Amino acid sequence: MKCTILSVGTELLFGSILNTNTAYLSQQMVQIGIDVMYHMTVGDNPQRLKEMIQHAYKDCDLIIATGGLGPTQDDLTKETIAGVFGERVVSFPDQLAILQAHFKKYNRVMSDNNLKQANFPEHASILPNPNGTAPGFMLEKEEKLIISMPGPPNEMIPMFEQHVRPLLEQRSDGVLYYKTLRVMELGESMLETQVMDLIEAQTDPTLATYASNYESTLRIASKRKTRAEAEQAVEQMVALVRERIGPYIYSEEDESISSIVFRYLNEHRLTLSSAESCTGGSFAKAVTDRPGASAVFDRSIVTYSNRAKVEELGVSEETLSAHGAVSAEVAEEMARGIYEVSGSDIGISITGIAGPDGGSEEKPVGLVYIGLCIRGRVQSFRYQLRNSNRQSIRGNAVVHMFRVLYRELVIDK
Amino acid sequence: MKCTILSVGTELLFGSILNTNTAYLSQQMVQIGIDVMYHMTVGDNPQRLKEMIQHAYKDCDLIIATGGLGPTQDDLTKETIAGVFGERVVSFPDQLAILQAHFKKYNRVMSDNNLKQANFPEHASILPNPNGTAPGFMLEKEEKLIISMPGPPNEMIPMFEQHVRPLLEQRSDGVLYYKTLRVMELGESMLETQVMDLIEAQTDPTLATYASNYESTLRIASKRKTRAEAEQAVEQMVALVRERIGPYIYSEEDESISSIVFRYLNEHRLTLSSAESCTGGSFAKAVTDRPGASAVFDRSIVTYSNRAKVEELGVSEETLSAHGAVSAEVAEEMARGIYEVSGSDIGISITGIAGPDGGSEEKPVGLVYIGLCIRGRVQSFRYQLRNSNRQSIRGNAVVHMFRVLYRELVIDK
Repeated sequence: MKCTILSVGTELLFGSILNTNTAYLSQQMVQIGIDVMYHMTVGDNPQRLKEMIQHAYKDCDLIIATGGLGPTQDDLTKETIAGVFGERVVSFPDQLAILQAHFKKYNRVMSDNNLKQANFPEHASILPNPNGTAPGFMLEKEEKLIISMPGPPNEMIPMFEQHVRPLLEQRSDGVLYYKTLRVMELGESMLETQVMDLIEAQTDPTLATYASNYESTLRIASKRKTRAEAEQAVEQMVALVRERIGPYIYSEEDESISSIVFRYLNEHRLTLSSAESCTGGSFAKAVTDRPGASAVFDRSIVTYSNRAKVEELGVSEETLSAHGAVSAEVAEEMARGIYEVSGSDIGISITGIAGPDGGSEEKPVGLVYIGLCIRGRVQSFRYQLRNSNRQSIRGNAVVHMFRVLYRELVIDK
Repeated sequence: MKCTILSVGTELLFGSILNTNTAYLSQQMVQIGIDVMYHMTVGDNPQRLKEMIQHAYKDCDLIIATGGLGPTQDDLTKETIAGVFGERVVSFPDQLAILQAHFKKYNRVMSDNNLKQANFPEHASILPNPNGTAPGFMLEKEEKLIISMPGPPNEMIPMFEQHVRPLLEQRSDGVLYYKTLRVMELGESMLETQVMDLIEAQTDPTLATYASNYESTLRIASKRKTRAEAEQAVEQMVALVRERIGPYIYSEEDESISSIVFRYLNEHRLTLSSAESCTGGSFAKAVTDRPGASAVFDRSIVTYSNRAKVEELGVSEETLSAHGAVSAEVAEEMARGIYEVSGSDIGISITGIAGPDGGSEEKPVGLVYIGLCIRGRVQSFRYQLRNSNRQSIRGNAVVHMFRVLYRELVIDK
């Protein structure tokens, strides 16, 4: 089965919102074994939407559409899809009743423009939406299938998982199996050079390199009749790749380095606290993005000012004036400070220059020191990050903190 | 001028990376006054890329392409574009020299696959890339223009700003002027109901509502021959909208609420510190995402455990056991605690249930208390956030912290 992911909404064409739905749906298609041929986005314009649908059906038998189902004036997706499929749009009484009950439950006034949300192409199957007022729908004719879902991710994702995914899994014409190898400290170009002959010879399994979240990744995929066949083909290729770049691979299961560290801390019942300067809370946020973080993570002290470093972490005024806030010495005192203040098993710290200002010849933007205190033993690590802006320096700095924990805890146990 | 934003890369179709380039370029086009008709994404497949380019040129005279210029095997954009324009691909000696110098400077080995990066369609104009090894290029024939840039945003964005934007501004056939009104505490559907008659009657200026970052936004745009005409048309419409929903509008300049708060603190030389529980550092991260935060922001203490709340902020054990960690009382003690510990003018705190676990009938997931201490005076605010997942609850909670600061400081001065 071949698929186009179609997004509808003028706000996307204005660049006002980031299209996260398309990335999510594409990942899902890969997992189900459906080939994604195109991503397309059009505004709330019936003519162009119609042309896009027709173009997509030249190569594809499935369109997954999001957006354009809401109550507002500019949402015309349903009417357009009905037109392409030669269907009338009619009001579905069941859906109207659900809609009215929803507004009553939340004591909200139902404005007239909401009535449209009970209209659908006459042969559509409804996809219920427990998280919003716009249901999705499915329509099929002459081996062309369209699935249309609302745009807000918190409505679309549960709808996809409950109703769409099971249906597509049944219909997928093969089984795709893939492994994503996560690679540390090896750029994308150098990574590809190492496995170039394998890439050149590829038919199935396929190999593709890409960069994400400050790291390189290698995806090895095979689509066969059975899962066992696909799995065997991938595993044989993984073994070949492992011979070339084994020491750089830190996960063969597409597990992030933060997840590996987190799992290790959990399994060994170790607790962690952090002291952050340049990352300003980003490390704590990354740790606590994960549900259940409280089993492992005690606290983070974001000491943005020098005074806070002294007061909260006991960094000495002398060290600050002798070496500056961005120094190995301060990173080490911060790490010891958070270790002692928190009573956690591990204290990690960071100080650096995220830019765009504050850099110098001696200490350029992107310089960071990471301090680590494990059961009283203190070390520090210096990195010159090559990223070009504040946001990516801060993001990459957090990844380096997890790398330090990975190397010093998980590997070096 | 009408434009398609075209992204090339199988990694996008796999959903492995989020397409941020398209949103950025779309925003830029809006500002320049170029209409974006489509976003399209194709993999590294010459035939489908060719068809997409041809489809885009049916409606558009400009294609802005990103991706597929790298050294790796699967990058075939240049060859395909050359084919559509009937051009040969040739090696540009100047570019080869620059490439060799680049590798020499960083003491990196230049693998053979990098040679391709000096190849271009014979009549291409080169767009220099000081941040990477793949230059972009521009090619024009018979009133069809294509601009092709590398995929990594840290290379693409500077290239666009330095070389592409000035060129497109010269060519734009009208001036688009727009205002984006930021609206607080009014849902998208209710917002549209308030201005429905204006939306229905719209030709120019156009009105569009959308939701972003947990808020509703209204964009009013006009495209006229001169900036003065467009500006006047927009301002007249803004005045009409202001009559309807004035009290809900907090910015007419598309300024975020965090930016308004930050500016206020700066102008009044006030300092801020925070104490976070459920947001786990997200508030501090949001504040320090901004360069120059150190003038305003002193520290944040992320007290994820109860013990940390007691030790770092002086929250009393009695309050914790009587009311629970998620309570108005604890939020207030946290706010007073961070205010006193930091010596900042303002202390703000948050405690809540981000989920997915930890909720109860009495204290469901999404319940948050925000504490605020301004010069010793303590208040707290209770919100039941309706978001459905941990990430959006945490994100919305941070927005609510900025709203509290906005209401209590900026308005209530």
